Amino acid sequence: MKKSFITAALVLAAYATSYAEEPVPLHYQRASLFETMIPDSTSVVFLGNSLTHGCEWHELLGMPNALNRGVNGDTTEDIANRLGCITAGRPAKIFLLAGVNDVSHDLPAEKVAADVLALVDRIRHESPQTKLYLQSLLPINNSFGRYSRMYGKEETIRQINELLAMGAKKRGVTFINLYPRFCDKDGNLRSDLTNDGLHLLGRGYLIWKQALLPYLGD
Amino acid sequence: MKKSFITAALVLAAYATSYAEEPVPLHYQRASLFETMIPDSTSVVFLGNSLTHGCEWHELLGMPNALNRGVNGDTTEDIANRLGCITAGRPAKIFLLAGVNDVSHDLPAEKVAADVLALVDRIRHESPQTKLYLQSLLPINNSFGRYSRMYGKEETIRQINELLAMGAKKRGVTFINLYPRFCDKDGNLRSDLTNDGLHLLGRGYLIWKQALLPYLGD
Repeated sequence: MKKSFITAALVLAAYATSYAEEPVPLHYQRASLFETMIPDSTSVVFLGNSLTHGCEWHELLGMPNALNRGVNGDTTEDIANRLGCITAGRPAKIFLLAGVNDVSHDLPAEKVAADVLALVDRIRHESPQTKLYLQSLLPINNSFGRYSRMYGKEETIRQINELLAMGAKKRGVTFINLYPRFCDKDGNLRSDLTNDGLHLLGRGYLIWKQALLPYLGD
Repeated sequence: MKKSFITAALVLAAYATSYAEEPVPLHYQRASLFETMIPDSTSVVFLGNSLTHGCEWHELLGMPNALNRGVNGDTTEDIANRLGCITAGRPAKIFLLAGVNDVSHDLPAEKVAADVLALVDRIRHESPQTKLYLQSLLPINNSFGRYSRMYGKEETIRQINELLAMGAKKRGVTFINLYPRFCDKDGNLRSDLTNDGLHLLGRGYLIWKQALLPYLGD
């Protein structure tokens, strides 16, 4: 009893701290919107950072039940802080893509992959009915010179993807390897699919759609 | 013939220039997505800047045909540059909210209102069937101290709203006065609805929804 009380107090304190800092107002603008709209058992949730935020999933996929739960700049920790408002609804599916902002904060591949897989484990624990799809990180292209914090991180991304593929397999979670679909021959994000080396133009989302189609029907 | 050729060339050159500059990659990321998804005659389009971008309209309103055409940071000029991909679809309705980013660029009220009303006129010309709803600017709250370019612009926003109301009336376009719903007694954006003085928290979008309900049914 005492132990569970202490645990609850620690969780609440951690939660309060993460919001009290509030370095990026956008995170809480989106998070507070999501608090007012809990998914239901028919929802298909797209969960992630700016790559997920940038798309209009219900429109692209022609699925009224597709919900965007992307927030620009979100790390795995930011996503963890707002995950409860998603799993509470026991959605039909979650497509998760997270980790690239952790890479920009100089975290090593093992740490980023472990944090993404901790999200996976929390989703499986909090909403066992949900079909969960773990998506790989996309390649980046530093020739655009827009994100200095991503310089030299190409190999880190590849390592994370290997760890995520293994972690998904171990857990019986479907892994969607987006990475090769977006790569040029040098292992960079195709320059015709981006204008900053990190985010996607419209034709990039059309490729993403193709990768998702096998998982949308059932 | 010669004159129309020159006009067409000038229009193309202006368009190319506006994209060639591309100061904010996000604008073209969103614009290029929208180029791949043209609305149809059943669409209800929410057109604007970050305030529009930040919401999940189809989900908030329970309308599968609601389309988000908001882009963070867009000025009226930015919206004009991508308007053709919206009017081409002859959508059922457009809810327009634009101008606050022009204010942050120090443009006077008369210029901003004229540019917003030019968008109105273009929409009416390019898609006469579309029911157009012009929304007022929202109040701001500079006590948050996040946007120095908005300091002292409270009165400019009120002047723009008066000009938009008059311009809408003159054109027979429905004007939705959002402003008073979001104001505190001092004429500032209610501090419980924002965390930066410009953008909305979730409960702000619930108020916006109430303001829209009378116009969604028909």
